Amino acid sequence: MSVAELQRRITQLEEELRKARRGDAAPEREKITKMSGEVVDTNPYSRLMALKRMGIVEDYEKIRTFTVAVVGVGGVGSVTAEMLTRCGIGKLQLYDYDKVELANMNRLFFQPHQAGQSKVDAAAATLRSINPDVHFEVHNYNITTVDNFDHFMDRIRTGGLEGGAVDLVLSCVDNYEARMAVNRACNELEQTWFESGVAENAVSGHIQFLIPGETACFDCAPPLVVASQIDERTLKREGVCAASLPTTMGIVAGVLVQNVLKHLLNFGQVSYYLGYNALVDFFPTMTVRPNPQCEDSWCRKRQAEYAARKAAEPIVEKVEVVEEEVVHEDNNWGISLVDESAPATATAGQVTGLAQGITTAYDRPAPSLPDDLTSSPPQDATSLDDLMAQMKAL
Amino acid sequence: MSVAELQRRITQLEEELRKARRGDAAPEREKITKMSGEVVDTNPYSRLMALKRMGIVEDYEKIRTFTVAVVGVGGVGSVTAEMLTRCGIGKLQLYDYDKVELANMNRLFFQPHQAGQSKVDAAAATLRSINPDVHFEVHNYNITTVDNFDHFMDRIRTGGLEGGAVDLVLSCVDNYEARMAVNRACNELEQTWFESGVAENAVSGHIQFLIPGETACFDCAPPLVVASQIDERTLKREGVCAASLPTTMGIVAGVLVQNVLKHLLNFGQVSYYLGYNALVDFFPTMTVRPNPQCEDSWCRKRQAEYAARKAAEPIVEKVEVVEEEVVHEDNNWGISLVDESAPATATAGQVTGLAQGITTAYDRPAPSLPDDLTSSPPQDATSLDDLMAQMKAL
Repeated sequence: MSVAELQRRITQLEEELRKARRGDAAPEREKITKMSGEVVDTNPYSRLMALKRMGIVEDYEKIRTFTVAVVGVGGVGSVTAEMLTRCGIGKLQLYDYDKVELANMNRLFFQPHQAGQSKVDAAAATLRSINPDVHFEVHNYNITTVDNFDHFMDRIRTGGLEGGAVDLVLSCVDNYEARMAVNRACNELEQTWFESGVAENAVSGHIQFLIPGETACFDCAPPLVVASQIDERTLKREGVCAASLPTTMGIVAGVLVQNVLKHLLNFGQVSYYLGYNALVDFFPTMTVRPNPQCEDSWCRKRQAEYAARKAAEPIVEKVEVVEEEVVHEDNNWGISLVDESAPATATAGQVTGLAQGITTAYDRPAPSLPDDLTSSPPQDATSLDDLMAQMKAL
Repeated sequence: MSVAELQRRITQLEEELRKARRGDAAPEREKITKMSGEVVDTNPYSRLMALKRMGIVEDYEKIRTFTVAVVGVGGVGSVTAEMLTRCGIGKLQLYDYDKVELANMNRLFFQPHQAGQSKVDAAAATLRSINPDVHFEVHNYNITTVDNFDHFMDRIRTGGLEGGAVDLVLSCVDNYEARMAVNRACNELEQTWFESGVAENAVSGHIQFLIPGETACFDCAPPLVVASQIDERTLKREGVCAASLPTTMGIVAGVLVQNVLKHLLNFGQVSYYLGYNALVDFFPTMTVRPNPQCEDSWCRKRQAEYAARKAAEPIVEKVEVVEEEVVHEDNNWGISLVDESAPATATAGQVTGLAQGITTAYDRPAPSLPDDLTSSPPQDATSLDDLMAQMKAL
């Protein structure tokens, strides 16, 4: 920089400092009542509205009508909330009971001066200043206690912008109990949601899209993880100081929100399961069918309802399949990924035929499974064998 | 006042302004002279040092010895710089000549109150408050002008923490000229670097690892991009208002820094090319060999040097290959990705046998290529045919 430029910068800073000290810090930007695609430097939505001109999204403005609940505002959840805020989401619900610590500074979003504040309050303050058009509702509590769980259920059911249910729940928590709580709530409320997770060795993660009755719920099978060279038990354990990286957390938040956008704004294909192994840049995808013997009774109820709906409309399903094939032919990626073969063979599988590179976080008892297997024989013998071997190993 | 004094004054004012804006004078965290793995809430490095205990990184503290140059501090570069800052990198050089605008708020990092500031100054101020242990050197100029290019070359050559060359250059720019400038500088300085890019339709991106003489340089072939359904000409064009998303930018920055960490801290496998197609969550990888007829004379010189080095040590190369196979057998990912087959067939290809899903951003004349092809016939006839078809299409 030239001396003149440096001096201009000093003048500018002194002016800003005077304003900040008087208490009228540089005003936040005004609220914007209608999204516009006008290409001017002062329009925070111009590059998003350009998605329409580029033929990617038909109706970007629709983003303002959606409410998303983010459960867990840590390494993944905070970045998830920031991305949605910058995309101009209508409303965010934030749930967390933790405080910001300096030990969180190795991940994106929170800053040292926020240490000691509750994560939800600190996050909402930052997010409001980034985009004052977004509505925020924050809950500084643990959703797994009985009272809080009831309140959580109620807010999911009625906390949408127009008073109805939220459009999507995103689980960004770091422990099994909280995931099971989200799972239970979403099965009962028939609430579509995404699960996300990062391994405690910081080098793998995943997202999963869960539609009650249609795809496996979190209770249908042991949690799936991307296999690593290090340790297969990669969900967070009590008392272990987990490693973490801003990279892995940011990538998981990124693919999570990208799939949220695809789902809400109806473009591209939503991944039902997308894994990430950082050591080898491996990103397996697959679909996981629900387990008819799932221990969650709401899951079984949703499965029955889904089966009944499907039985009532067989032709629509066929048309959908044809459309999907056309998409693959039209473009020239020639997609024949190894992981693409898994969904095809797993459609009638009892739990799933896991894609290569995916494994379960642990084995656990499946009490009624062996007796009932005959009632619905899986097409894929290998995945049945795998399952039996897993159960025998118990 | 001297330039140094003016710069000190700016730093001081920025610091005071930050404090005034948050309404309290809570001190930034103290500098930390030695990284510790102590598991306490006040240790910003505990979750990073845990990578050692998890067996991922042998010597995490080494991160403090490295200097990384980030060229372009926009949607990808700013997040890249933040991730490296939070990881505790030794020193960052930041290059950009742009100002923060509200139109940038649909991507991570910058905040509305920074509108009007230069990107490098705004970024350095935020990054310093996040991690005061990192050294910053900022340059508010366009590296493509003659004078600036010379200065840029000089700073790459001598701007390292100990006065030598930087350890890595990361290109996070959004246009062809700037990429070619980085490419030219790195070929001449024999500087290892990463290139990154995001399509103007916001739904695809890539990173590429470039070792002069060993892998293709940016001038060896038309830039590679991940094919999309929309438009193959996905590098930023003059006069087009590009679409952008915080998700795609964050993911590209994430995989960029993840591979930077793998390279600097020696864990996992660095991807030479990693693409990302957001519409279908497709992440192709491959290796691209240099073009012996590259128009950049420094690239050809580095290729000759590399060939000479390789010829002098054939046994070492063989041992490496065996080790890599063992790694694949040891773990149970069973990696047989479609994109993994590309490097194998492309090793002797003239430019490259592109992995499925990858295409070039445009075709361009390759004046001497047809005559010289016979001197080094590619093993893969298909990729040669592709290349010939491309050239005939001109």
